[in-house]
Amino acid sequence: MSATLIDGKKSAAKLIAECSEQIAELTAQGITPGLAVVLVGSDPASTFYVRSKSKKCKELGIHSVKLELPAETSQEELLKVIDDLNNDTAIHGILVQSPPPKQIDEAAIIAAIDPAKDVDGFHQVNVAKLVLEDSSGFVPCTPMGCQRLLMDYGVETEGANVVVLGRSMIVGKPMALLMMAKGKGANSTVTIAHSRTKNLSEVMRGADILIAAIGKPEFVKADDVKEGAVVIDVGINRVEDLIDDRGYRIVGDVAFDEVAPKCKAITPVPGGVGPMTIAMLMANTVKACKQITG
Amino acid sequence: MSATLIDGKKSAAKLIAECSEQIAELTAQGITPGLAVVLVGSDPASTFYVRSKSKKCKELGIHSVKLELPAETSQEELLKVIDDLNNDTAIHGILVQSPPPKQIDEAAIIAAIDPAKDVDGFHQVNVAKLVLEDSSGFVPCTPMGCQRLLMDYGVETEGANVVVLGRSMIVGKPMALLMMAKGKGANSTVTIAHSRTKNLSEVMRGADILIAAIGKPEFVKADDVKEGAVVIDVGINRVEDLIDDRGYRIVGDVAFDEVAPKCKAITPVPGGVGPMTIAMLMANTVKACKQITG
Repeated sequence: MSATLIDGKKSAAKLIAECSEQIAELTAQGITPGLAVVLVGSDPASTFYVRSKSKKCKELGIHSVKLELPAETSQEELLKVIDDLNNDTAIHGILVQSPPPKQIDEAAIIAAIDPAKDVDGFHQVNVAKLVLEDSSGFVPCTPMGCQRLLMDYGVETEGANVVVLGRSMIVGKPMALLMMAKGKGANSTVTIAHSRTKNLSEVMRGADILIAAIGKPEFVKADDVKEGAVVIDVGINRVEDLIDDRGYRIVGDVAFDEVAPKCKAITPVPGGVGPMTIAMLMANTVKACKQITG
Repeated sequence: MSATLIDGKKSAAKLIAECSEQIAELTAQGITPGLAVVLVGSDPASTFYVRSKSKKCKELGIHSVKLELPAETSQEELLKVIDDLNNDTAIHGILVQSPPPKQIDEAAIIAAIDPAKDVDGFHQVNVAKLVLEDSSGFVPCTPMGCQRLLMDYGVETEGANVVVLGRSMIVGKPMALLMMAKGKGANSTVTIAHSRTKNLSEVMRGADILIAAIGKPEFVKADDVKEGAVVIDVGINRVEDLIDDRGYRIVGDVAFDEVAPKCKAITPVPGGVGPMTIAMLMANTVKACKQITG
């Protein structure tokens, strides 16, 4: 079997084009969507992600505000920044780049963001809306991106056995909740497997669609995957590679080379889920803008 | 194999005894837990449930307020009642018996209840706390009761394959979220199966622990259950029975007579999950009282 390579860059470009159309409609009404990204401290990976987000905003004509605060910013100061953004009518989406420095209580910061502007989908109100299948809420960008890839590639999800590997609040749980919901691109039979799962290989082999979000480099092997499965790899792991100029390379949670030949379709890393996450952030920002101004 | 009969009455009595001890401690501090149950209209089943709840409160020395409002109560009038209860310092738990009449927007009513008094666990804040594994929240009483039965009977849940049949907001989803969480009585590999699941019998047969909450009388047959499984039957279905004086009898979602011989342990209906639900409501009321006054 020759696996279809699920091209995240192509899907992301399609989604960005849809966003672009919606932004043009908003602009015609004199409305410009605005996204504020708050970064506390100067973690190199965070700085990179924040820059990518700002760049994508600019490309799309989204008003982008990048707030780079010193590493020693206090909880109170950060709450004040969030409050100002909540009240700023030019801003429709707010996100605080994770992880913040230790003196910051991240849960309290997320709780302070206006749920209507919570484009990361981490606020309690949006978490609950996902469980309650209320489509006015915001769903975290990575699981949304995975679902969109499945839909773009015509993967049948209704009644399919979906195994989600990992139970994090950012990917695993929202992914499972999305796929078990009623409706298009969902209606799946969902299994959430994790570090405590005993017969993990057997559970994974039961998957028609396997979504790996366990954060362990090349954890999923050929023996863990059913012939003809669709595999979505959420992992972005840096592993040492002395041949590479950077001294490392990026691999997913799936041992791509051995797994791919068994699959009906599979995402590469990089170039799979990654580009979808940032595109979904743009889509959530446009949605927030439409809901707030509409 | 001779199945252990999981005795919900006995487990409920144990839980009620624990509540009683905690209430005695509160009383010693001059605090009496208070529960308000609001009933709009006079649906016979609802009237029965409300009466059972009040009766159990009285047995335990919980201050019980039963508000029976006419069927034509408006949304605004009901919101006023909720607001008064939110502000009533003698009340620590509030529940509105479901389903309300058609003119009532149930979601808006639930949203109006102070989350700290939402002993049904239906408020967005409590739904999110369940997802986020924040134990200060309230979890719906029926899934909590099912988990407690498993713990009382020493059923190993860690790494076990739990299949939850049904994806409702009241039982299926919270049940799945409870069992996939970290910690004692949980850490399970959870599969949520439902009406759209294609290979349902096969999925159910994979369960070490099968929790049936699909609302279909005697839906789960012997062939759907693995030898040695533990079966928790959440269903309460009324089926016609001309031999019975009432003209009906109550059956679960599991065909008990044929399934029981294959099980390691199973709950009967009635006398299984049912008694746990009301006991958990008492436990949630005591918890609310302790959190509010503590």
